[in-house]
Amino acid sequence: MRELALLQHIYGNNTLLPECITIPPGDDMGGIQIGDTHLLVSTDQLIEDVHFNAQTPLEFIARKAVARNLSDVAAMAATPVGAVATACLPKRMHQAQAYQLCDEMRRWSERYSCPLFGGDIAIAGSKLHIALTVFAKPGDRGAVRRSGAEPGDIVFVSGQFGGAWTGPSGPVSRDFTFEPRIELARRLAEHPDFQVNSMIDVSDGLARDFKRICEMSGVFGQLDGSLVPVHSSAHVAASGDGLPAFIHALKDGEDYELCFTVSEEAASGVLKEIEGVPITRVGRILETATRLHAGEIQILGVDGEILSINDLGWEHHI
Amino acid sequence: MRELALLQHIYGNNTLLPECITIPPGDDMGGIQIGDTHLLVSTDQLIEDVHFNAQTPLEFIARKAVARNLSDVAAMAATPVGAVATACLPKRMHQAQAYQLCDEMRRWSERYSCPLFGGDIAIAGSKLHIALTVFAKPGDRGAVRRSGAEPGDIVFVSGQFGGAWTGPSGPVSRDFTFEPRIELARRLAEHPDFQVNSMIDVSDGLARDFKRICEMSGVFGQLDGSLVPVHSSAHVAASGDGLPAFIHALKDGEDYELCFTVSEEAASGVLKEIEGVPITRVGRILETATRLHAGEIQILGVDGEILSINDLGWEHHI
Repeated sequence: MRELALLQHIYGNNTLLPECITIPPGDDMGGIQIGDTHLLVSTDQLIEDVHFNAQTPLEFIARKAVARNLSDVAAMAATPVGAVATACLPKRMHQAQAYQLCDEMRRWSERYSCPLFGGDIAIAGSKLHIALTVFAKPGDRGAVRRSGAEPGDIVFVSGQFGGAWTGPSGPVSRDFTFEPRIELARRLAEHPDFQVNSMIDVSDGLARDFKRICEMSGVFGQLDGSLVPVHSSAHVAASGDGLPAFIHALKDGEDYELCFTVSEEAASGVLKEIEGVPITRVGRILETATRLHAGEIQILGVDGEILSINDLGWEHHI
Repeated sequence: MRELALLQHIYGNNTLLPECITIPPGDDMGGIQIGDTHLLVSTDQLIEDVHFNAQTPLEFIARKAVARNLSDVAAMAATPVGAVATACLPKRMHQAQAYQLCDEMRRWSERYSCPLFGGDIAIAGSKLHIALTVFAKPGDRGAVRRSGAEPGDIVFVSGQFGGAWTGPSGPVSRDFTFEPRIELARRLAEHPDFQVNSMIDVSDGLARDFKRICEMSGVFGQLDGSLVPVHSSAHVAASGDGLPAFIHALKDGEDYELCFTVSEEAASGVLKEIEGVPITRVGRILETATRLHAGEIQILGVDGEILSINDLGWEHHI
């Protein structure tokens, strides 16, 4: 099955949604107006043998379930308010493990000021499945969308990219211990010197997720591979398969860092670091008048050459 | 694993929730105060080989996923406002089936004025798993809780009970084609002549779910087996296993009808029928001063005798 085609099919019906739906499917969170409240909602699954395995400690399964959703909240520069969860527990799970999982889900939700206040539990099958739904309220300037990038914008990222599943050493890899950039995003979005035009959290790889900004904004984007901050884990990954580390940083995913755009005039005001996390300029939205390139991206290699899809080691078109 | 013990474990931590949580785990929906908005949220799973099987038409899987959640909305006499869903699609599913499932989910959500505005899709494993989260707003008199039953209250139900999985004839049984009692519940809760003190939707069997009202309200309830409206399907089920039809009506579940209580003084004002659905008096909350029976129920047989758990054909204590 082609997941991308299915998503396009769903987005194609967005026009059928009523007016109260302020943000339809296709962004990091959905939005709905209920009375005076603009409610943002994100829902995400964590599935055994897809996102974790039977050996992953329950603490880190719970943490990832919560943190992944909160990374979507960060991508809109919103503030979490609460969550509900479903869990389908495998029949092999012991009572004590089930208690622990529920306790850890509650603990990690609390940690991010996002209290878990409802849910549904089933006991069935052989694989653990968790679905978490998180509610948030937008900041004073409103939710930051994927669709707001403008020609001329400068592209920034938080943190470093690549090889998230390779390390650092410890019981689990970085894709289980990342911090959702909620506070960082809020400080970006509320900064008096610039406005964040568009933002996304990077879960499927920097290039892929930046392309989503370009698609939703109808612009032509460029990432400069020589500027992308490369995580030490990307070098570990590179030593394993021979691909350059910066290619891993562009394509690997599970980084849960932010990618955002700011107008060229305001870009010099963007801080170099927020809460100890570096903010790095990695590209720009090109000034192009042609519709031909809307939604497309161009990636430059370390010597400024334009890379082809094959250079990125992708099996499928991004 | 004992699901009941796990739920008790979760409810035991309800006191840790912050003040904005107006309805903690243990009711049909959770409640959270966000600014001026009191938001009600319910989340529920539909799992292959638990709630449907590989032969169930996709239309009815989608319908049940939506209608089950909306039955929770009805139980609080609330009005649905929107929904988000996750779907874990089995690898065997064809593209056209995935389109159909998404379209049917959208269609059934719209049908109940509960637009689907966000979600998450994964393709993994061999069983279809759907988790739907529904948002609702309470009526003018507030959400009707499970916990409001008072000694002396009269117990009523909507519709008829028993054998939901046996028929009527058609592509699927009644547990796939029930109508969530949203409008009926609103008319009950807004009626000027009486106040609904407590309400629940019956998914796990009338006796079990009525016991939940008694547990949450701390009262001692009595159901009169001779008064419980028996669905024709309960007779089909009875002819299969030899248990009396009224026992099937008390224990089978998947009826998705409402059970509610009204004070004795106001009970005569309760309508006999709403929107073509009969409303029937089936029991009462006993006047007892002892704590011994709080949360317990007593079930009378057709001749007024007190039934034992064994008479109900349950394997486990309710």
